[in-house]
Amino acid sequence: MTNAYQYAKNNQDRFLDEYIHLLKIQTISTQPEHAQDVADAAEWLKNMMLNIGMDNAEVILMPEGRCPLVLGEWHGAGDDAPTVLIYCHYDVQPAVIEDGWDTDPFTPTIKDGRLYCRGAVDSKLHVMSNLKAVESWLAQDEKPKANIKVVLEGEEESGSENINAFIAKHPERLSADIAMISDGAILDLEQPSLIFGLRGMCAMEVHVQAPIADLHSGHWGGTVHNPIQALSEIIAKLHDDEGRVTVPGFYDDVEALTDEERELVAQVVPNLEAEWSEVVNAPQQYGEPEYNIPERIGARPTLEINGIYGGYTGTGFKTVLPAKAVAKISCRLVPGQDPDKTANQVFDYIREIAPPTVTVETIVKESGAPAVKLDISSTAMQAGRVAYKHAWGVEPVFELAGGSVPITFECMKVADEVVIMSYGLKSGRAHGPNENIYLQNFYNAIQSTIKFIEEVGSSNG
Amino acid sequence: MTNAYQYAKNNQDRFLDEYIHLLKIQTISTQPEHAQDVADAAEWLKNMMLNIGMDNAEVILMPEGRCPLVLGEWHGAGDDAPTVLIYCHYDVQPAVIEDGWDTDPFTPTIKDGRLYCRGAVDSKLHVMSNLKAVESWLAQDEKPKANIKVVLEGEEESGSENINAFIAKHPERLSADIAMISDGAILDLEQPSLIFGLRGMCAMEVHVQAPIADLHSGHWGGTVHNPIQALSEIIAKLHDDEGRVTVPGFYDDVEALTDEERELVAQVVPNLEAEWSEVVNAPQQYGEPEYNIPERIGARPTLEINGIYGGYTGTGFKTVLPAKAVAKISCRLVPGQDPDKTANQVFDYIREIAPPTVTVETIVKESGAPAVKLDISSTAMQAGRVAYKHAWGVEPVFELAGGSVPITFECMKVADEVVIMSYGLKSGRAHGPNENIYLQNFYNAIQSTIKFIEEVGSSNG
Repeated sequence: MTNAYQYAKNNQDRFLDEYIHLLKIQTISTQPEHAQDVADAAEWLKNMMLNIGMDNAEVILMPEGRCPLVLGEWHGAGDDAPTVLIYCHYDVQPAVIEDGWDTDPFTPTIKDGRLYCRGAVDSKLHVMSNLKAVESWLAQDEKPKANIKVVLEGEEESGSENINAFIAKHPERLSADIAMISDGAILDLEQPSLIFGLRGMCAMEVHVQAPIADLHSGHWGGTVHNPIQALSEIIAKLHDDEGRVTVPGFYDDVEALTDEERELVAQVVPNLEAEWSEVVNAPQQYGEPEYNIPERIGARPTLEINGIYGGYTGTGFKTVLPAKAVAKISCRLVPGQDPDKTANQVFDYIREIAPPTVTVETIVKESGAPAVKLDISSTAMQAGRVAYKHAWGVEPVFELAGGSVPITFECMKVADEVVIMSYGLKSGRAHGPNENIYLQNFYNAIQSTIKFIEEVGSSNG
Repeated sequence: MTNAYQYAKNNQDRFLDEYIHLLKIQTISTQPEHAQDVADAAEWLKNMMLNIGMDNAEVILMPEGRCPLVLGEWHGAGDDAPTVLIYCHYDVQPAVIEDGWDTDPFTPTIKDGRLYCRGAVDSKLHVMSNLKAVESWLAQDEKPKANIKVVLEGEEESGSENINAFIAKHPERLSADIAMISDGAILDLEQPSLIFGLRGMCAMEVHVQAPIADLHSGHWGGTVHNPIQALSEIIAKLHDDEGRVTVPGFYDDVEALTDEERELVAQVVPNLEAEWSEVVNAPQQYGEPEYNIPERIGARPTLEINGIYGGYTGTGFKTVLPAKAVAKISCRLVPGQDPDKTANQVFDYIREIAPPTVTVETIVKESGAPAVKLDISSTAMQAGRVAYKHAWGVEPVFELAGGSVPITFECMKVADEVVIMSYGLKSGRAHGPNENIYLQNFYNAIQSTIKFIEEVGSSNG
């Protein structure tokens, strides 16, 4: 054991200060008015890479002024040593206090051992814990036995439009033996977990129009199909009474879990049931009754309404009969499913069930991403297992993640193996109000990545 | 025939100038920054009443500084003569040129025989044509044989909060034999129409919640009933496939039209079909197939979704699984139906069909108003018929209005009979951009009200 571990512990207060500094920068990649904030953060991160001893670091400007990548590299282990690529993203979701935050979303606030701020878990936790792990290694006389590349994305929360093209054009810049994607959440504060599968996604909008303009509901109500009602009727037909998606062919390509995989995910049933009661806490659970909670989240596709609007939505009342109603819909996909095929299945069905009294327009939003399955026996996954055990003191369990990490798919093109090292918690309210992380997670995460780098280095010995 | 008619024709250019003067005053009752404009208009109208020879006129300040009433009275016909109460409102909807106006909304502009301005039809047309009719009468040596009261409301477009209370507290101020409510639109430029029924209304909100907070749709999608979906499922059950409301008991108290009434409204089928194609122009008509368009609008109750929202509704995409979704719902009511009873029927049904996976909250919005039916054979309606025929040269047709004119209900408390004398056109874009009125409508309206006063006066002879 080197003393990188001790270095991290000795410097943990300063590390926390730097983490807080980054959290204050409003790196909201979907909002053009925050472009300067994103650029400032990128510059700050590049300088940090240089300061901690990486060989070179660079802010890579993206086409059309989109949020830049930050790349850093340390090649001191030599050409024969394995190379680990660490991916994180430094941009965040929008947040305003009116969404239900108890404190200002961009004023980091520590309370009862937790740090509250937009981006605290998703994903500046990962950016900072990994950079601080690299710093802890490079500060030692005895350097790591693996080369290190770090790539920090600035537009993960706004569609990752450019990173895929960048990887395709410059695969050598990110090529590695092992890619460690650091994002997401472990099972529990005291129970790390390794993800061996991620759901994919496709996203779309459905626009329903009936009259050519907003009407007075008294003058014309009763003679025209209210588009909100028509859209609701369409949405209501997309699931059966037990929560199965009714789109024809929707489940056709779904690859069923093996018996071994079902056993692995069954281990997390109690944790997820408990977490559901805390985080979701709806009057009842919902979803395909023949699958347990971790299977519904990780092994089954979904069709979710992410947003709906139409007519008057302000305070008070306006007796409008609106011209139009819109739903934003996304499907989470599992291995075997193709994003485009699934989107088209949904569109075909919506057009089939749409009443003739309205016009329906279907629009694909963003490029879809397929689901990903990772090999549990790989060097990368095993290094992750050892790293988690070192930092948390317990063996990680194995999970199927419900979310998408589209970069996983891209990293599989430039790295022989991929592992996802998540340091957040599901209860950390990523994307929601009062996003937060236990400070202990931050400290554990740094220790875990230090160990991970050691393990990858020793894998070549 | 007196020469009040000729007087009005002789003075029509001056009347138009005065109408234009009133139109320039931005009497937007919903916007506190226009409170002084409203007060100026009230003062100007009061002075006009005095100048044209009314016995007294008064600006009645309303509680909490809301827009005042203007009352005027001429009692020269004596205690034995009938009294007619004329109701209009002088406040207007907000308007800015960005809404799509071709000319400034508060700069009256005459083009091709039409006058464009916010309030041109709704409802300064009615205020001015009625005051100018009263002036034309009082300028004669031979005075009218009916006493006249005029009440001009200043907050019709912002909820009419105070006028009902004022009437309840001072019924004698507005008491009359006949109330003439002057607002709204006739069937067509060359075809006047008399409304013999108005729909009532009740308004409500339905809030559906599933998780306790917004969630990441990847993390939890598949395990919780999406509240937008649940709300859509509820809304989809409120109508059958042919557009009938499925709420149990909803139609129980509906009074069917008599055969004679069905014949009357059947006359306007061609006009409404043509207007539907121009104004609504959805891919197909919708609604109870056993009723024609004027019956669906005037004689059948509706349940309309006036607004819906939930989840992410901005540009782009956010893969949220929202905590909550809200629908704003209103029912248009017909004679026989009680607003509270109907709202409770809807609420009971929604609670009955709501799935156990979500919580549903139902909220009554605003106080409901029952529908109103007016007796075609009354002195007031027959005076209206004669007045329209005199001014337009054709017999009016009879209509059932789809909207509510809540003041009708209040006027029925202080007057024995009520008639609605509309002088606008449905194509006049009340509440919309480029609101306008044909000048000929203004001149016809003055002649019509002169005749109406004559008819009421002679009814006592």
